[in-house]
Amino acid sequence: MTITISIDCMGGDHGPSVTIPAAISFLKKQADVHLILVGLEDTLRAELKKHRAEGHPRITLKHATEVVTMDDPLEIALRKKKDSSMRVAIELVKDGGANACVSAGNTGALMAVSRYVLKTMAGVDRPAICSIMPNQKNGPTYMLDLGANVDCEPHHLHQFAIMGSVLCSAMEGIPRPSIGLLNVGTEEIKGNDVVKATGALLRADHERGKLNFHGNVEGNDIFKGTVDVVVCDGFVGNVTLKAVEGLSRFFKSVFTENILSIAGALLARKSLKKLNPERYNGAGLLGLKGLVFKSHGGANAFAFEWAIKRAYDAAKYDVQEQLSALIAELMPTSPDSQRQA
Amino acid sequence: MTITISIDCMGGDHGPSVTIPAAISFLKKQADVHLILVGLEDTLRAELKKHRAEGHPRITLKHATEVVTMDDPLEIALRKKKDSSMRVAIELVKDGGANACVSAGNTGALMAVSRYVLKTMAGVDRPAICSIMPNQKNGPTYMLDLGANVDCEPHHLHQFAIMGSVLCSAMEGIPRPSIGLLNVGTEEIKGNDVVKATGALLRADHERGKLNFHGNVEGNDIFKGTVDVVVCDGFVGNVTLKAVEGLSRFFKSVFTENILSIAGALLARKSLKKLNPERYNGAGLLGLKGLVFKSHGGANAFAFEWAIKRAYDAAKYDVQEQLSALIAELMPTSPDSQRQA
Repeated sequence: MTITISIDCMGGDHGPSVTIPAAISFLKKQADVHLILVGLEDTLRAELKKHRAEGHPRITLKHATEVVTMDDPLEIALRKKKDSSMRVAIELVKDGGANACVSAGNTGALMAVSRYVLKTMAGVDRPAICSIMPNQKNGPTYMLDLGANVDCEPHHLHQFAIMGSVLCSAMEGIPRPSIGLLNVGTEEIKGNDVVKATGALLRADHERGKLNFHGNVEGNDIFKGTVDVVVCDGFVGNVTLKAVEGLSRFFKSVFTENILSIAGALLARKSLKKLNPERYNGAGLLGLKGLVFKSHGGANAFAFEWAIKRAYDAAKYDVQEQLSALIAELMPTSPDSQRQA
Repeated sequence: MTITISIDCMGGDHGPSVTIPAAISFLKKQADVHLILVGLEDTLRAELKKHRAEGHPRITLKHATEVVTMDDPLEIALRKKKDSSMRVAIELVKDGGANACVSAGNTGALMAVSRYVLKTMAGVDRPAICSIMPNQKNGPTYMLDLGANVDCEPHHLHQFAIMGSVLCSAMEGIPRPSIGLLNVGTEEIKGNDVVKATGALLRADHERGKLNFHGNVEGNDIFKGTVDVVVCDGFVGNVTLKAVEGLSRFFKSVFTENILSIAGALLARKSLKKLNPERYNGAGLLGLKGLVFKSHGGANAFAFEWAIKRAYDAAKYDVQEQLSALIAELMPTSPDSQRQA
């Protein structure tokens, strides 16, 4: 079966100069994929020509007249730019023309437009952003929410745990991924009220054999690889992610400051590779009626290609179907909708 | 004037084998300091002998019969071990025998015993833990709270900002340190309700010329050095700190995995030095009626000496007096005590 991915080629800091070469490179590696490149057609065509990829049999061009910029307020992205490359790429997923979509556009706009176009999956109150981080066991640690929900109640965190578990299981082939609840200590009594109540919900799922809940984890466990999935609210997740990105950049800057440090980095390059954040690009927007992946806005072609690959894998491994099934089993009616009823 | 520091020599993972050499080394560098070494007298005496420092004119030994272990529950530290080296070291500050105290004992116990023995400073509702992180501007970024308060209201965060500002100003000689409120975006409308309300309090102080509030900052700003002081609640602060420590350890492990990476680290060692967490050891427990500094439990002698130096600096630069004065000016009656009244 061919997997079709729609790509918002205009998004991110660099637009087609990054997204097009990434798309071409991915097509070379993956035979069963078809890409729909969305954006200003002339611009895309010119970029394809530059790379001698015009008329590629597995590329379809889809014209979109507008572009959501990195600074556009949500309102503009949502209400004004109805023919943006971002929105058209997402609509392709809604209409069944694509199995998943990828954009490097601004996160807030991408989440808002995705929610508006695709709607939230039954049983899920709030979609969440899930990404991966490298860990010392040479595997990825899945972590969510990374910023979509700054105020969470226990049942929201509970849903994040289910979604993260499904994504990790499908993408990594781990039958029962272990789940850790991010906290200030590992003991059950630690943390604030929301985290303590979430722990009780996850323990109950664990006891009836539904989720593999490890218990509380601390910030350092993300990189130790203590668990497969780390769950937290979007405030903590976003701050932690950005702090970690900031430290990585600091680290990188240290290696370019003089000739000796550059030589050191060159010698250690094979080892340093595993810390390269570009390999961990591509966050899933989970809990929508369709697959959307978000690339870092500043991604280069190498990193953007990883985001395409992650969208492709999620489509190939039926993340949506598995997610619907587990949500239906564990959370047939979402607490928020019950409350509204 | 001689500064007297009491040291809990039994605390931490390594006890006297780390604390004693650190104390001796600090005495050599700093002429105007007197150290009171607290712990099992025979053990301390044996360790001093090993380093040929028995009878040092600027060392006093203070016997304490008990030791708070890293795993002792708060209750044990607080109610049972009344003659612990940790408690005796803190009592020396209370009685005026020492200007500040240092311990590598467990954080929860140290904060609980410090609050119990010293009490909270007038105008402060909750003491906070403040430490420093390296930044790309080659200066330290002060950050608090790092774990003492997992649920905070806006006036608590407001008090943390005042305390962080005073500590940074005194220690770094910066007249008006810039303060950033840790958030998921820089715009005023970003964040949860607590953070938004805190922003309003800090802006009001800024407008009347009392605090130098920069605005919201994100996780990466900690390492960029965007502001001098980063304020957050203890949940976010603790998770971020531990995530950053975890990533640093991951970096370190990458550099010891094979001969090439070790050679790379050796070449780059001068540059890597600025990332060495040992140089940033020593967190202040602020808002108590006395100065207490906390060393990392796993600190080596080099790192523990930095914690002693930070306690010495805080005493020398009159952090307590400056803190009382600014709290009295900006927060004459604490909101929590008003509420109780």
